[in-house]
Amino acid sequence: MQAVYYEGNKTMTAGAAQEVKPGPGEVRIRVAFAGICGTDLHIYLGHMDQRVKLPQIMGHEMSGIVENVGEGVENVKPGDRVTVMPLHPCGECPACGAGHGHICHKLKFLGIETPGAFQTFWTVPAFTVLKLPGQLPLDLAAMIEPLAVACHDVRMGEVAPGEYAVVIGGGPIGALIALVARARGARVLVSEINPHRLELLEKLGFETVTPLETDVAQLVNERTGNAGADVVFEVTSSQSGAELMTKLPRTRGRIVVVGIFGKPPAVDLHRFFWRELRLLGARVYEREDFSRAIELAAEGTLPLQALITDVLPLDRVEEGFRLMTGGGNAMKILLRCDPQAEAEQPNLQP
Amino acid sequence: MQAVYYEGNKTMTAGAAQEVKPGPGEVRIRVAFAGICGTDLHIYLGHMDQRVKLPQIMGHEMSGIVENVGEGVENVKPGDRVTVMPLHPCGECPACGAGHGHICHKLKFLGIETPGAFQTFWTVPAFTVLKLPGQLPLDLAAMIEPLAVACHDVRMGEVAPGEYAVVIGGGPIGALIALVARARGARVLVSEINPHRLELLEKLGFETVTPLETDVAQLVNERTGNAGADVVFEVTSSQSGAELMTKLPRTRGRIVVVGIFGKPPAVDLHRFFWRELRLLGARVYEREDFSRAIELAAEGTLPLQALITDVLPLDRVEEGFRLMTGGGNAMKILLRCDPQAEAEQPNLQP
Repeated sequence: MQAVYYEGNKTMTAGAAQEVKPGPGEVRIRVAFAGICGTDLHIYLGHMDQRVKLPQIMGHEMSGIVENVGEGVENVKPGDRVTVMPLHPCGECPACGAGHGHICHKLKFLGIETPGAFQTFWTVPAFTVLKLPGQLPLDLAAMIEPLAVACHDVRMGEVAPGEYAVVIGGGPIGALIALVARARGARVLVSEINPHRLELLEKLGFETVTPLETDVAQLVNERTGNAGADVVFEVTSSQSGAELMTKLPRTRGRIVVVGIFGKPPAVDLHRFFWRELRLLGARVYEREDFSRAIELAAEGTLPLQALITDVLPLDRVEEGFRLMTGGGNAMKILLRCDPQAEAEQPNLQP
Repeated sequence: MQAVYYEGNKTMTAGAAQEVKPGPGEVRIRVAFAGICGTDLHIYLGHMDQRVKLPQIMGHEMSGIVENVGEGVENVKPGDRVTVMPLHPCGECPACGAGHGHICHKLKFLGIETPGAFQTFWTVPAFTVLKLPGQLPLDLAAMIEPLAVACHDVRMGEVAPGEYAVVIGGGPIGALIALVARARGARVLVSEINPHRLELLEKLGFETVTPLETDVAQLVNERTGNAGADVVFEVTSSQSGAELMTKLPRTRGRIVVVGIFGKPPAVDLHRFFWRELRLLGARVYEREDFSRAIELAAEGTLPLQALITDVLPLDRVEEGFRLMTGGGNAMKILLRCDPQAEAEQPNLQP
């Protein structure tokens, strides 16, 4: 039984995990795979020290097998292959009252406000645990959480078949949004500057554009008969992304803000007025997005494996974080938390 | 027959008007009253010299009586009391094709791209002319155009009965938005700093707040059980307005951008993500907003007269512009273009 702990100051240490017996309404999962998320990276880099409690076990993108369950748990049983929707809303605040529990005013995010999945066994509330279809490999199942983010973004953006969508930023979440939007029937252009990501996105069949070389607005106008894009996803959290996003949409077009902006960028509100644009903030996912993500992953039509850059054992976690901070060459790094975890062989050369 | 001309460099001159005989599909209107709009002020101050053609006859908020009509005009006849919806879309661009002619890519705005209503007779396309109900005084009818802006903003903001709305900026448009939102059944708070406007808004029965003195977000939380506002209207086009607007809405709350921002302000996009806020740009109006404005004005339940600060004859137009630039003490100034125009006595002490 192992866990990796974030100790602050860009330090992760592997150590013994404490056994947490599942209490009433809780489920103990033997973790198979856990992905390193951009948020974990922010924690690692010290940006969220005020939100975590040291030593923090991170991790919230995962798959595994139920080991045992506490009293009163009926939705899963030992041996079930599962994933976790890592949101714990308070149930009492105005957001919860309005049916927006996923953005509860006092939301506990498992793996940030509570211990996470970077350990051999993870004990979580039963209502967060969802069963997986039998045919879905557990490594791909660890991609369901970020895929649910993409499903939420595409649903919030009301992407319709035949529409023209632009994704600004082709990292892991941007690539998943592009895949989900295309699966929804949209034509998709991805704007990205990293050559490795551009290469991967082109292999996945997307038209790409490099904003440093090409006038993206002109290209979008050419592709849309001068109308503009129906929907734009901003996934860079950068000033340049915030500038580009308002130049692309058609009259009454939509912009979905997916990127988590550290400071307020300058935004061309005149353009919102001029074209009656709409901007929609999107955060995590709701239950229906998670269900849709499980469904999409199980269908096997999305090339999720191509997004997995590497799979490392739990005790090589620091190497994983270093790969993720290395300038955008890595897409998704998975940790193999259970050495015996079944898996398809991931594609190591995306 | 008189007209006033903007000559550039903050200069207006009264002079002889050229008679424009109505061509096929055109209507010649004897203008009764015409309001000075914020946009006219921008023209006067030289901000839009690239858009107007000197000497420019401004004016697009008006009422009048049909003098004569050109060939093929069937919607109005001489003697009809009318107003004008001053939009001339091209009918061919992608925006027109998508049914958004009011924000046509090549929109001609009557009184900006064409001669306007600050003259004794105004000749316009028949499709822009709408009949007025008999009981509506012509001075109040000159308020229909800005009232239609407010109707559009409230409709775009999807204001529902019982909702809590905040209007940031209580000038002429902000006050009209507040009135229309209240007529729709919303509870309305108006944020404003000018003491004359605050006094008028309070006389109109609105709760007001001065952001320089009071924490508006805290007040809104108190009024909404800590949920936040359902909808916020930004009508100041200021950095401080752009900062305040994101602090007030509830989860999934709406912000309507009404103000015309001269330069891109810093906008807290993190808050959009965090609360899944929505931002909606709103520009002018559609036919249904104009019809709703005529209906509302004719019902006589809105205190439109209280917003009319003064009525001046056409040749005192410069005085009107000076009043409007005088620090926000004036709300709406009307010009009496036809000295014989019938009118109720406006309230000169709002």
